[in-house]
Formats: sequence, C-alpha cells, structure tokens
Amino acid sequence: MPAINFSVTARDKGARRGKLKTPHGVIDTPAFIPVGTAATVKTLDGEDLKRLDAQVVLANTYHLMLRPGPDLVERHGGLHGFMGCDGPIVTDSGGFQVFSLGWGLAHGVGKVAAMFPGDGQSATRSASSRSGKRLMRVGERGVRFRSHLDGSEHELTPESSVAIQQQLGADIFMAFDECTSPLHDEEYTAEAMARTHRWAERCLAAWTERRTQALFGIVQGGAYRGLREASARFIDGRPFPGVAIGGSLGRTKRDMRKVLEWTTPLLAPEKPRHLLGIGEVADIFMAVRLGVDAFDCAAPTRQARNGTVYVGPKNGGTPRNRFRLNVSAAKHADDPWPLDPDCSCFTCQNHSRAYVRHLFAAHEALGPRLATIHNLHFILELMRDIRKAIESKRLDSLAKRYGLS
Amino acid sequence: MPAINFSVTARDKGARRGKLKTPHGVIDTPAFIPVGTAATVKTLDGEDLKRLDAQVVLANTYHLMLRPGPDLVERHGGLHGFMGCDGPIVTDSGGFQVFSLGWGLAHGVGKVAAMFPGDGQSATRSASSRSGKRLMRVGERGVRFRSHLDGSEHELTPESSVAIQQQLGADIFMAFDECTSPLHDEEYTAEAMARTHRWAERCLAAWTERRTQALFGIVQGGAYRGLREASARFIDGRPFPGVAIGGSLGRTKRDMRKVLEWTTPLLAPEKPRHLLGIGEVADIFMAVRLGVDAFDCAAPTRQARNGTVYVGPKNGGTPRNRFRLNVSAAKHADDPWPLDPDCSCFTCQNHSRAYVRHLFAAHEALGPRLATIHNLHFILELMRDIRKAIESKRLDSLAKRYGLS
Repeated sequence: MPAINFSVTARDKGARRGKLKTPHGVIDTPAFIPVGTAATVKTLDGEDLKRLDAQVVLANTYHLMLRPGPDLVERHGGLHGFMGCDGPIVTDSGGFQVFSLGWGLAHGVGKVAAMFPGDGQSATRSASSRSGKRLMRVGERGVRFRSHLDGSEHELTPESSVAIQQQLGADIFMAFDECTSPLHDEEYTAEAMARTHRWAERCLAAWTERRTQALFGIVQGGAYRGLREASARFIDGRPFPGVAIGGSLGRTKRDMRKVLEWTTPLLAPEKPRHLLGIGEVADIFMAVRLGVDAFDCAAPTRQARNGTVYVGPKNGGTPRNRFRLNVSAAKHADDPWPLDPDCSCFTCQNHSRAYVRHLFAAHEALGPRLATIHNLHFILELMRDIRKAIESKRLDSLAKRYGLS
Repeated sequence: MPAINFSVTARDKGARRGKLKTPHGVIDTPAFIPVGTAATVKTLDGEDLKRLDAQVVLANTYHLMLRPGPDLVERHGGLHGFMGCDGPIVTDSGGFQVFSLGWGLAHGVGKVAAMFPGDGQSATRSASSRSGKRLMRVGERGVRFRSHLDGSEHELTPESSVAIQQQLGADIFMAFDECTSPLHDEEYTAEAMARTHRWAERCLAAWTERRTQALFGIVQGGAYRGLREASARFIDGRPFPGVAIGGSLGRTKRDMRKVLEWTTPLLAPEKPRHLLGIGEVADIFMAVRLGVDAFDCAAPTRQARNGTVYVGPKNGGTPRNRFRLNVSAAKHADDPWPLDPDCSCFTCQNHSRAYVRHLFAAHEALGPRLATIHNLHFILELMRDIRKAIESKRLDSLAKRYGLS
C-alpha cells in the first residue's frame, strides 16, 4: 500500500494544481506547509490551524530528537498523538539544522540565522558563542554534532534519521542529506552531493519496514548546474514517492530560478516536488511556475513574532517591500486599520493595527499570536488563490496583481 | 437610566445567586472575573474568552494609563473597541498598583509581587532597583508616583482616576482609594481610610457626567474591626450602585474571614459586592458563603504561565496543595493524562501533561496558553458549580467535595 497518492488535476504552463493524499488527509497543492519546529506552530494550537485550514504542518527532527526525544514522542502516539493533530504531518531529516550549525564556523558567517527553517537563531547563537569548539563533523557514516541546547554530543546517520522519523510517525519524511551553503565551492559541493546520494540509498534501505510513511529523496548540488542535474537524475531514478529540492539555491533570486529551471524538468511529473525552506511571495510564484508543488518556511511565523506582518498589493504590499509591514513601529500606535484591510483572518476581522502594536509594545503574548494567525492566513490564502488561478489558467494575471511579471 | 441592574435570584444561607445586568450583557453571580491587565487576558484572544464563557474581564487602569494611554484607548472606542470585546468590562482605579509600588519601600518588603493583581512583578522589581528614590507620595489631593516602565512621574487623583476610567469606558469602574498593606498600623490605616472616604465623595462628584458606567465604592479599613465597620457603613451609605471590598484583608485566611464577617452584613443586600484581588478555591467558597458576588484575581492566569495548573478534588487537588499541580516538573515528562482527567476544557480534551510539559521545557508560547485556558476554565467551571449549588441549596455539599468544611 503506497503511503501517498499524488495526482495533478490542472496545469497552467509549468504550474501544477494537484491533490496529495496522505494517511491523515488530502493536501491541496501547490501547498504552503507551516513550520511547527518543536511539535507546535509557535503561539498556535490545533484549533487555530484548523480555522486557518492549514491542512498540514512540518516539524523539525533535529529539535525533537534533542527535546523531548523520539522515544517519548513515539510512546505518546507519534507526532499526531503527541501534538493532538489528526491531519497530515511532514518531518525534515535533521540534516539542515545540523549542517547549519557547522557553516557559521567553517565560513566565519555570523548571520546564517535567516537560513534556519526552525528556531535556528538559537543554534546560531550557540555556534558563535562556542567558536573554536568543533560543533559538527561529517563522515561517510553520518554526522556527529553538539546540541545547541546543552552542548551534548549526538550523531545522525541515514539509518538513525529514518528510525527517528519513523518514531515521530509523520505522513511524509525526508531522506538524510548533507546540506551545503552558498559559500561551499564546487568541489566540496560535489563531494557532499555524492555522499548525499549514498545516504539516499541507505535511507531507502532503512525505510523498507514501515511503508505507511512516504520517504522523499532530496536533490542537492548547490547552485552548480552539472551537480543539480546529476542529483535530480539520481534522486528521480530511485524509488522515492516524492522529491524535495534542498541545499543551497545560490545567493540571489536569479540563482534560485536557475536551480529550479535545471532541476524540475528532470523530475518525473507524477511525483510531488517540495522546495525546502522557501516561502516568500515572489519565490512562491516563481517556483510554482517552475512546477513546484509544496513549500515550507519558518519566515511567516518568525517574522510575525517580530511584529512584521504581510500586506497584500491593494494595501501597500509590493515585491520591493516583500509585502511586509512592521506593525510594531511607533507610527502604527494610533492606526485604526486592520493589519490588511482586505484580509478575512481572525486578527483583521477583530483588531486594529493600534491594538496589535500596543500588544507588541507591552510584550503581550497575544501580539505574536495575532500576527502569526494573520501571516499564515495571508500565505495560505495566497496558495488558495494560486490553486484557483492554475485551474482557470490565470496564474499570470494573479502574479501581475502582486506586481510580479 | 441606571448603568447596571442587580437581582438576587436564589440564596443558600449567606450565599447569593444573582444576575448583574450591564450595558454589554449579563454577569451571572457569584462570578470570577479574569484579569486582562493591559487590555488582554495574557495569551488569550476574545474568541478564547467566549469559548470559556468568561462573561466579563477586568483591566488595570494603572497599566493602561501608562501604556497605551487613555486618550488612545478612547479614540479607538474605549476598551470595548480597542480590545475587540463586546462583553462586560470592569476597570480598577489604579490605586492598588500605585500604592503597592510604595509598600515595598515603606516596609522593606521584597516579595509583594504576589499581591499585584496585574504584572506587578515588574513594578516590584522596579521598586527594589530604585530603592532610595521615592516611588510614591500620597496627599489629600491624590498620589504622585513614578512609572515602573520608565520612571516618569505621574499623578492620580479621584478626579483623574474617574476621568481615565470614563475614557476607558468599562461597564463597571472603581472609586479611587488608598490601599494599605497588612504592615500598616491602625493609626495609619484609619488616616488612609478617612482619606479614601473623602476621595469617594470626590469620585461620586466627578462621576455624574457619564452615568452609563457604574461606579463602585471601595470599603477600606485593613484588618481592624472598627475601621472596617465604619468604612462599610460609610461606603454603603453613599449612592454607589455597587461596593467593592479592598485593601488589606490581614495576613491569614482567618483574618480574611473576619474582615468579610464584619463587612458584608453592613452592606445593602440589593447592591452587588466585589472582593478585589481574591481567587483561591478556599477563599472563593468562604467569601461566597459570606455574601460576596464577584471576584477578580490574576493568580490563575499568572500561575498558568509558570506551569502551575489546577486539579480538582478527584485528581489530587486538596485545600492543602491549593488544588495546584506543577505540570512543568520533570516527573510529568512522560505523563499521558490530561492536566485534570475530569476537565472538559480545550487543553484537557486535546493534550497530555507530557505535551504541555514539553511546551514549557521548550519555552513554547503554547504552553502558557494551554495552561491559561485550563486554569480559567477550572475557576469559571467552579463558579458555575457554585451558582448551581446555591440554586439547589447544596453549597455545603459542594464545599465538602473540595475538602472544605
């Protein structure tokens, strides 16, 4: 019995509208998957996610293996039972966070926080504060790393990542891969990609036991055309029910477009394609047009907690300002408008910018919560609009409404 | 047109079951009023409060006058418009917080935090960190004090407290009183009480303009019988539509009982009686039996944010442990039970202690939120049970179920 079933129901040029059936329900694609790092989409409960019609969430294996640990989650019914969630769940492999821990050190990069899909900020802080100490070591067997929580030493291998993700019990889980950064050269990226491919085989071998969960292979290769194409062909050729595109997508939006242009044409059309860690409006349009079916990204929820909320093109949102407004700014102290006057979310139906700004100024937990509800609604509503636009072959005109050609 | 209308519909010995009609809806009494210090019951939104059937909330004038300020709240439709709340709202006078700022200094008391109904903890910190600086000075005209936020100087007088509370626009608001602590002697308490009575007259005079809000007088007098009786007679004799019992209730539960025994018999039975800042299970039973109709207290929500949750008598709650359980303790890491297995709240219907404990361990905002929902449900459900018990004259047997004679 295959764990998932994917069908494309409509197309608009390269964009696909589909249905991804999982043991816990259907995901309409293109889909945005909110990130629930530590088995909670920060500030929200399960009812909130239902009201948002989120359909699916992604939890982070790295964080959950450290706290509360996979054995405990398994004893409580896997993530579905532990979180009290009856919809589809996705987990990542833990690789991205583990390798991100190492990048800051290897490249002397201080600001990799934005690249972390989970609460990478703490991992990054930890990486800097311990500089000099080796945080991560990769070998053929897997990766040894130190926890950002307490410095304790841990190991992740293809086999243990699969085993942990099977304990977590998500409907869709990811093969363990080595993530490279835009600062890695082609030689190292090629070496890491080859290792990722060998690990992919080991993940497939480890996966055979519990086929009710769907294992996605991950395409690597950085922003190097030859490597991306080789990786896409290799991963596509293996019996993964879905494919994720991971690792470095270069330094610019143009790089990202190229990586997708090289990759997606080589992937079997009948398999769903997930683009890891991407969630900006312009990037979503670009990737959907290049045939991507699913996204996950912590930015909408992390930005919400910092008081950055999304506004549509009718209310000041542009590709240039990335459809963002800083509601915690003093200029909104007396602003009677909703976050986005055309938004139908709970926050915008009930509260003004002045109130939300007051909550941020007073450090009230309700501020991040109301902003999170709004930002997720904004992105999920965008995905609903994108799906409708693909069905009626009007994706170009929807993009134009967002100021994107 | 009177702002409120109160009717007692049933009695069980000294306990009263009533209905308090306000411009924004009916409050069933005896009632527990959740505290929403800064125009938000911390971690909850208006929908949550409706689902909890909270009926009414209390906001703190001291906090709101400092941030965001009464002018701003008024411009946004008063607290009802600003918070997006269409039910009854109560405000206090600001007196308690202002005078609490002074106690720590006057008595060298470091731990007055527990006495603060709002987020007094920061006020207390401020009081200690500035020791030496005068934080509060009382005179016939009113009180001058420094903000716990930025040290700026402010004044509250009977007239300005009434004016600010009229701007905030609550259905019920409180006369400006001088609060004394259990450490004040009888002479000072008498002096403060006499001043409170003169201020009560000034509040009444200031109130005449907007009679759609109901002004409650406050009985002071500390734990001194003569003073409490004099204050009860004085406040009862003035044209307040309701009476609150404030100030020091002594140092023990026995002291509190005595204060209530002296006070409530002297109050007109047709007026509602509010006991300020009290909300423990045993205290609620005691006060209800002595004729109190309403309570407000920040403890259930503050304790929730610290991981202290309430359990009923069937599940380990006793007067001795104050019906509390520390769910953030390591021993609950693997505990599959709900916070209270007999509780019907959202948290208990959907989540285990293990999950809530994980959220606290991972510093996730959902932990305080789920605990707050539970604690408020616990107290509000207790009030519903108390009201039913009074109607069927079985309050004694309900108290016995809680281990209270």
